[in-house]
Amino acid sequence: MTQITSRADCQALDQQDALTSLRDDFILPDGVIYLDGNSLGARPKASLQRAQEVITQEWGTDLITSWNKAGWFELPSSLGNQLAPLVGAEVNEVVVTDSTSINLFKAIAAGLQIQAKDAKRKTIITERSNFPTDIYMAEGITKWLDRGYQIVLIDTPEELPDVINDQTALVMLTHVNYRTGYLHDMAAVTTLIHQHGALALWDLAHSAGALPVHLNAANADFAVGCTYKYLNGGPGAPAFIWVPQRHQAVFNHPLSGWWGHESPFAMAPGFTPTPGIRRALCGTQPIVSLALVGCGLDVFGKTDMQAIRKKSLALTDLFIQLVEQRCASHPLELVTPRDHHQRGSQASFKHPHAYAVIQALITRGVIGDYREPAIMRFGFTPLYVRYVDVWDAVETLRDVLDKQDYDTNLQRNAVT
Amino acid sequence: MTQITSRADCQALDQQDALTSLRDDFILPDGVIYLDGNSLGARPKASLQRAQEVITQEWGTDLITSWNKAGWFELPSSLGNQLAPLVGAEVNEVVVTDSTSINLFKAIAAGLQIQAKDAKRKTIITERSNFPTDIYMAEGITKWLDRGYQIVLIDTPEELPDVINDQTALVMLTHVNYRTGYLHDMAAVTTLIHQHGALALWDLAHSAGALPVHLNAANADFAVGCTYKYLNGGPGAPAFIWVPQRHQAVFNHPLSGWWGHESPFAMAPGFTPTPGIRRALCGTQPIVSLALVGCGLDVFGKTDMQAIRKKSLALTDLFIQLVEQRCASHPLELVTPRDHHQRGSQASFKHPHAYAVIQALITRGVIGDYREPAIMRFGFTPLYVRYVDVWDAVETLRDVLDKQDYDTNLQRNAVT
Repeated sequence: MTQITSRADCQALDQQDALTSLRDDFILPDGVIYLDGNSLGARPKASLQRAQEVITQEWGTDLITSWNKAGWFELPSSLGNQLAPLVGAEVNEVVVTDSTSINLFKAIAAGLQIQAKDAKRKTIITERSNFPTDIYMAEGITKWLDRGYQIVLIDTPEELPDVINDQTALVMLTHVNYRTGYLHDMAAVTTLIHQHGALALWDLAHSAGALPVHLNAANADFAVGCTYKYLNGGPGAPAFIWVPQRHQAVFNHPLSGWWGHESPFAMAPGFTPTPGIRRALCGTQPIVSLALVGCGLDVFGKTDMQAIRKKSLALTDLFIQLVEQRCASHPLELVTPRDHHQRGSQASFKHPHAYAVIQALITRGVIGDYREPAIMRFGFTPLYVRYVDVWDAVETLRDVLDKQDYDTNLQRNAVT
Repeated sequence: MTQITSRADCQALDQQDALTSLRDDFILPDGVIYLDGNSLGARPKASLQRAQEVITQEWGTDLITSWNKAGWFELPSSLGNQLAPLVGAEVNEVVVTDSTSINLFKAIAAGLQIQAKDAKRKTIITERSNFPTDIYMAEGITKWLDRGYQIVLIDTPEELPDVINDQTALVMLTHVNYRTGYLHDMAAVTTLIHQHGALALWDLAHSAGALPVHLNAANADFAVGCTYKYLNGGPGAPAFIWVPQRHQAVFNHPLSGWWGHESPFAMAPGFTPTPGIRRALCGTQPIVSLALVGCGLDVFGKTDMQAIRKKSLALTDLFIQLVEQRCASHPLELVTPRDHHQRGSQASFKHPHAYAVIQALITRGVIGDYREPAIMRFGFTPLYVRYVDVWDAVETLRDVLDKQDYDTNLQRNAVT
């Protein structure tokens, strides 16, 4: 990247940027620099009209006929198919449904059942720094089954080769760490996992829509992900689950609700899972929230993940460079890898007063977020974050730090 | 009820009806008589503005601050507290979350765990005619646990006293049968269940919002229910789960996601359930769909369940009376109990060409639905169904039957 030394340089980059026009597909509040799309993606403009259509026409006027006529019943699959290419999945391998936690439960359960033929495979390996709900769901199912399964927590990715062995049933990793932004090499790690006969379950919460993901190329076994972060599907929008064709026939899980039945409307008292990806469904889905996921995905249809990745790395490179140059006198420590191959679409810095500084930034309209311990997290969504936003965010940070314009007495009371 | 012999009589009843004005709180398409609110409740007028507010202000403008500022994180509990009085629950005993199927799973799992101290309690009793997903979820968990649990299906409610015994862990019943409209005596059945040391799990899908439910007075153990039928929460809106105070400390289930953790934002790697009802939560909820549940509940705040029940029985009485009088020459067989104490808010009739007749009615704007085998199902939501609608629906049915204006070659292809 050419050395950037002024706001004008950033403006020039925005003018040349192929993704610039996509910012118009989103609504962002005036005076806000939004670097928290990795927590809640910004609102696609189309979402309001889509909600109005679902509520007035589909629900209000067409009522129950919309289950067929408006494709409500097919939404988990149709949205799944729209999402599939963003994560390197094939048609009929993804459904949008339930929450990430629930989908993790299905995938962990199915994975343990597949591995049950080998009685010594009793461990699930994951990272202590994984998003907590991933660990909690593994804890829930292993405790429940009460068959001697154990969760092994590793502290760094480098420990995996030493810890994985012929007793490993499942390795469950989040592709990009929510705190540090560390990006796993999915293909290499999956190969290692398979060399030991274990299964690879990937959580794409911080990678789907942020960078190219190649689930099938990596020969991954299962994946889940979130639609309300980089995919801009709306607050708490239903999550997704990926099961490759090769595992679908043996993908069984205890959340065997009627939407996963082979003939859900026969109303038969015994459960027979439907062939294919819809066996990952359970119960009726929240249609309004689900439909809005399509508005986020539509924007991705106007570009490709390579272009998004290129800009994402340029934005995070620039942010890191400017913070280190312009805030050099302050005790900021980069916790996100500098190596592009190990970086998601965020940059996180430690600071002794991280929480207070983040609150001061938010007050000034620069929205990042705080994560324990002492981490300021800034997410970069190339669809709507500009180079000039990077400049302005760093200048605001510099000003807050230079003037010590933050309140170290603030008590953390945030839900973000 | 005074004998009703004309449309004018029905109009007179509507004029005297205390609930008449509440119809204005809903949007119903012109020319439609909607007798399918037990499948998908009609749209409350307020829902459009509420969705606009959530989408534009809360999501679009306030972004992640809405988790606190707009109360998103508290929505499952705040809506649960609003819903609680409709089902005879106390404050902090209900959360609106996930799907009915998922909530059944939590309740079945928790119930089995509570009963596990008595090793001989290995059966779950339910009805063969229960809504299939209830049975599927029980099947999923028992098969998965693989500890000798068995599901015992009874064919009539009268079998329960003979089948229940000291090996029964759990009795799982739907308060009002989705097909026949049969209403269980919750208090009496729960007492019987408790006499045998079993736990009573009630599915309120077809009773919450349709008639007064007295969970605490009946001393029930757990309940789940649907918000998108009689509660008019919107298509597929999140369901609810009730756990009484007395069971909350021992309510443990394997879907231990971060929203059920005692300090979800501490991001600790070990799961400790929060005290109280929020331990029934799992993952992040679909906020737009969830928020709309409030619009349905707000209408209930303008009346009470006694008034609703009174009108519900009057409507179903009238419908049954008129069908039997005015369609007497046709082979219609009432499958809904005549006894008020055994009837929900629907009337179902068998007819040899039920599917074809229902389709003909729908074509003429009278929306009921078909249920296997050969059942025409008509649901009556007193908040927006009028006496005159009953008259017109029966007249339309009579005309369709008299003229045989239905196509018996129609193949069933409906998702309702």
